[in-house]
Amino acid sequence: MIRAGIVGGTGYTGVELLRLLAKHEGVELKAITSRGDAGTRVSDMFPSLRGRVDMEFVSPSAEALANCDVVFFATPNGIAMKEARALLDAGIRVIDLAADFRIRDVAVWEKWYGMQHASPELLDDAVYGLPEVNRDRIAKAKLVANPGCYPTAVQLGFLPLVEAGLIDVDHLIADAKSGVSGAGKKAEIGFLFSESSDNFKAYGVAGHRHLPEIRQGLSIAAKREVGLTFVPHLTPLIRGIHATLYARLTKDADLQQLFEIRYREEPFVDVMPSGSHPETRSVRGANVCRIAVHKPQGSDTVVVLSVIDNLVKGAAGQAVQNMNIMFGLPEASGIDIVPILP
Amino acid sequence: MIRAGIVGGTGYTGVELLRLLAKHEGVELKAITSRGDAGTRVSDMFPSLRGRVDMEFVSPSAEALANCDVVFFATPNGIAMKEARALLDAGIRVIDLAADFRIRDVAVWEKWYGMQHASPELLDDAVYGLPEVNRDRIAKAKLVANPGCYPTAVQLGFLPLVEAGLIDVDHLIADAKSGVSGAGKKAEIGFLFSESSDNFKAYGVAGHRHLPEIRQGLSIAAKREVGLTFVPHLTPLIRGIHATLYARLTKDADLQQLFEIRYREEPFVDVMPSGSHPETRSVRGANVCRIAVHKPQGSDTVVVLSVIDNLVKGAAGQAVQNMNIMFGLPEASGIDIVPILP
Amino acid sequence: MIRAGIVGGTGYTGVELLRLLAKHEGVELKAITSRGDAGTRVSDMFPSLRGRVDMEFVSPSAEALANCDVVFFATPNGIAMKEARALLDAGIRVIDLAADFRIRDVAVWEKWYGMQHASPELLDDAVYGLPEVNRDRIAKAKLVANPGCYPTAVQLGFLPLVEAGLIDVDHLIADAKSGVSGAGKKAEIGFLFSESSDNFKAYGVAGHRHLPEIRQGLSIAAKREVGLTFVPHLTPLIRGIHATLYARLTKDADLQQLFEIRYREEPFVDVMPSGSHPETRSVRGANVCRIAVHKPQGSDTVVVLSVIDNLVKGAAGQAVQNMNIMFGLPEASGIDIVPILP
Amino acid sequence: MIRAGIVGGTGYTGVELLRLLAKHEGVELKAITSRGDAGTRVSDMFPSLRGRVDMEFVSPSAEALANCDVVFFATPNGIAMKEARALLDAGIRVIDLAADFRIRDVAVWEKWYGMQHASPELLDDAVYGLPEVNRDRIAKAKLVANPGCYPTAVQLGFLPLVEAGLIDVDHLIADAKSGVSGAGKKAEIGFLFSESSDNFKAYGVAGHRHLPEIRQGLSIAAKREVGLTFVPHLTPLIRGIHATLYARLTKDADLQQLFEIRYREEPFVDVMPSGSHPETRSVRGANVCRIAVHKPQGSDTVVVLSVIDNLVKGAAGQAVQNMNIMFGLPEASGIDIVPILP
Repeated sequence: MIRAGIVGGTGYTGVELLRLLAKHEGVELKAITSRGDAGTRVSDMFPSLRGRVDMEFVSPSAEALANCDVVFFATPNGIAMKEARALLDAGIRVIDLAADFRIRDVAVWEKWYGMQHASPELLDDAVYGLPEVNRDRIAKAKLVANPGCYPTAVQLGFLPLVEAGLIDVDHLIADAKSGVSGAGKKAEIGFLFSESSDNFKAYGVAGHRHLPEIRQGLSIAAKREVGLTFVPHLTPLIRGIHATLYARLTKDADLQQLFEIRYREEPFVDVMPSGSHPETRSVRGANVCRIAVHKPQGSDTVVVLSVIDNLVKGAAGQAVQNMNIMFGLPEASGIDIVPILP
Repeated sequence: MIRAGIVGGTGYTGVELLRLLAKHEGVELKAITSRGDAGTRVSDMFPSLRGRVDMEFVSPSAEALANCDVVFFATPNGIAMKEARALLDAGIRVIDLAADFRIRDVAVWEKWYGMQHASPELLDDAVYGLPEVNRDRIAKAKLVANPGCYPTAVQLGFLPLVEAGLIDVDHLIADAKSGVSGAGKKAEIGFLFSESSDNFKAYGVAGHRHLPEIRQGLSIAAKREVGLTFVPHLTPLIRGIHATLYARLTKDADLQQLFEIRYREEPFVDVMPSGSHPETRSVRGANVCRIAVHKPQGSDTVVVLSVIDNLVKGAAGQAVQNMNIMFGLPEASGIDIVPILP
Repeated sequence: MIRAGIVGGTGYTGVELLRLLAKHEGVELKAITSRGDAGTRVSDMFPSLRGRVDMEFVSPSAEALANCDVVFFATPNGIAMKEARALLDAGIRVIDLAADFRIRDVAVWEKWYGMQHASPELLDDAVYGLPEVNRDRIAKAKLVANPGCYPTAVQLGFLPLVEAGLIDVDHLIADAKSGVSGAGKKAEIGFLFSESSDNFKAYGVAGHRHLPEIRQGLSIAAKREVGLTFVPHLTPLIRGIHATLYARLTKDADLQQLFEIRYREEPFVDVMPSGSHPETRSVRGANVCRIAVHKPQGSDTVVVLSVIDNLVKGAAGQAVQNMNIMFGLPEASGIDIVPILP
Repeated sequence: MIRAGIVGGTGYTGVELLRLLAKHEGVELKAITSRGDAGTRVSDMFPSLRGRVDMEFVSPSAEALANCDVVFFATPNGIAMKEARALLDAGIRVIDLAADFRIRDVAVWEKWYGMQHASPELLDDAVYGLPEVNRDRIAKAKLVANPGCYPTAVQLGFLPLVEAGLIDVDHLIADAKSGVSGAGKKAEIGFLFSESSDNFKAYGVAGHRHLPEIRQGLSIAAKREVGLTFVPHLTPLIRGIHATLYARLTKDADLQQLFEIRYREEPFVDVMPSGSHPETRSVRGANVCRIAVHKPQGSDTVVVLSVIDNLVKGAAGQAVQNMNIMFGLPEASGIDIVPILP
């Protein structure tokens, strides 16, 4: 029985971790911390967990987490980098759902995240937790940087093409649309129902923090620096990311076959039949990325459609998948959920 | 292993049954019929079931269902009443998710449903599948009439008060709000996104088919005919029913305690603490009815708030619960799902 | 040309006032104040007003508003009561869209609003701005208390019955549902898209501030104290209130005719044909209250359905209607808008 | 007073025309036809028009429209091409909101629309009704082909760049997102609330009918054949199109200035300040296209964001704008509406 702790369990990735871990047969939840809500019963904050999670939030502290085998950070950026070291030294494995350990180049990280990195020395040991790329390294990792939601959808969509060297990697375009839960449980005007319902907009066109993360992953796959235009949009869904990816083909190939072979062994990537249009609701609540590849009108532009649930394969589900890999559990434990539709 | 069949698996209660049964460890799904979509792969119609349900819809026929222990009718009203007899004669148990066997008085049924009943002789043996009322009879039933969605939410909210004889049962008021999936997967203008999004309306104020069903259940509990004003509303949710119930108190009592005691042993009814406001999303995807009871401003009017997911506790989940009871399986098998929030 | 000012123009009632006044041919907008956003261009905060409102928010001050004939307070509760006196003394008429002057009994107000009233001496002169009740007094008023959104929908629905003495006024029930914009433009978790989309809940069942306001209005109409159970609900619309009203009939009458006669001369109340179900979207963006009256199943319970756009007839539109009446303009000036559907 | 008729007034472009024309001071509405709903009062079908449009739908016939100066076709594709000739011969001007006269090459039209064109001889006289390109020709036109919704947003976004010869026109990418009302008021499963709410998907990637229309317009502007990848998506809004456009810059230029100059005189195109992200709701209900141009991360890829209300500037509003131009009315008559926000 893996003993797990969660730091910062009051946000959306936190409650999603709780939903998944509450039914994970190989995991015992030992502690959930919250600086602001210590003493509150988890099920008072999240009535959906009544009868499921019989715990209180506790103050973050070393003792609270001392008996854990693994600790998930479901915190804002900048927390895990301060607290991971002590846990790792105590032999506790760490999975950070925030961005602290995603970027290998500390200067790039500091520029995009606007703060000094508190533990750059950990970056070398941190493994980027995209199982479809790094499964073997994740299995041995002490510290996993769980990928961002956009980066998961965009990388899984582009990887087969980039790895096969079939496209012009200097001019990749990722037009991505996210549900509002991707913004987290933050009391900001822009994410009010009255502001974001019945509305659609792009944001962060000048530069979004997920841009360097995607670029890093694709550059590793391409074995050279790639060029990427990344435009995120806010769409009135609660959950779901739809990435529409565009690239210029430089070689001919059977793209459908390429994708099917690349992900043949992957339990959580579903390459749909030729001509498909994956819907975000087809993965709602589930740890799946569904992908379709198109070459419209016989042009030399390839279009890849990639959908995930941003809170599952884009966050908490992928974190549990990483935990399963790290501890040698069946990879689908606790995340073998059928999507909820309608 | 219970062998199950589904008649009419292409609607919302059908796909919800599939979602639940696909993960039910005690059930093997043998056949799913569809008159119009025979030959179509289930996962082509519902991509959410890719990798989960590896079957095709087959034409409805006796043979298709011959090897089943239980058959669910997820059909429009008027189908099960024609086909149940043959299945029952073959020793197959039947759970009808439509309304054919819900009303004991055939004249009342025929008036409200506008057709002649094809097998009134089965009504005496049919058991109304509200486990919180009829668990023992369901356990022995061959034919279960699964309750309607509104009737489930409204009856569970009123029952403790009616059974205890605390309220004026001549003037019950049920103001109920339903998500749009309650209307089924029917191509009608009124249920288009552009019609029912960002809109709220009452409907069927003059008389809704769930009125006699609720009245029947509450009259049995009251041991006399009750009077009920039932106003359903359409609200822009996919899933969820919120029933707001009003009654005049005729005696004094500790209402909170009354509800807690009534449902103390019920695995799928959650009486919330005094002062609570249950949200529909707190039961999204789960087989739970959450209830709160209020006596606002010290008046003699009691207000009960009752929420369910109309497709789960209001349809497919309750049907699986009934199947579990009928076959002596643990009552929570396959429906022990944590609600999805946000 | 009426010179108008707006205090607190950054919220939803503020921007709605701007939308209406920008096209009002008898009004010249002189100043819009905002404590926090002085110096910001109105059209930078509300791009919908680009090319329509060419002004900046200015700091609230006496001078800013000195040249106005009328000042609208689109502020939180508790502001207008402090600032109205000075404006009135300067001969400027005041319309408060908040609650400061709605309740005649200062003790009741202070209990429900949790603060001391800063200018109770103004309450006697303040006119409750429901034109369908107080048109003549509004015409002469210096200070108008614009009604709340729920109170507008509920009172207009109940008034014909109460005035005619046809119902048991000790046990009125108002089950009201509001879109999320009714909560204002406040950065609170509960009104985030991810919290209030695809969700339905009651709130404030124990007691909502609009309860005493509604009770006051209906008591005046009944010429005695009425008893009211008022249950507000939050529904995933941006705009719209749907009030479903229940009362016990004590006398027989032609209810349809009663309503039609009561509102025959009212430009902004639409009594729909018998059997109708008004939809909130049928008044979206418009200053209309649509009402239908039902007597379902021949019982003695009357059901009234009443819908408004909470930001128009429930706030800014009614405020402009009051202004028109106060200044002798055609009552429909600036608010003669066709609802937007779909 | 222009006498106007509408053929096929029961869909969303029809009711939107009615909303606009009901308040147009220079237009008298003479007839609205509907094959299926003749005899129905307009305000019974659309309660939003109660008190605004006091007419019945009439059967389509020559007499019904004989007294009109202009007739709008708000019909499915393939109707106007059969009926326009007779109206034109009678001296009545025609504005087709469907696609019958949009494509100059009849073979292309027949391929994409899957039917034989009934009056190809009219194509030469038909003027494509994008005022920002063809204002002078529209002023003299007898027959105007009102542009499609996507083509309006995409062309207005690309035109300044294409006309200035600044981009690689062989590889244009238009990633467009539409609200559900763009699909019309058709009873199809895919557009049900329960299907398209809380969901996001691409569709028609292999080829959408608006592709040849956009390609034609941009090719005229480029004075050569352009290459375009066009991916439409369905997003859970009622109204709104957001086009995100990508192109490779081949020359350097001040893009902000380029757009501002191009649209300086245009009453219904709003070039937003540098760095802006136009929101669909900022044009809700209004005849405006708002555009922002970006060059993210200093790359050679230009990103244009273009939003419209698909039913207004993308359909009925633009049709009225065209009518105003054709009849020498002030161009903003009847469409000078402030967007509704929130």
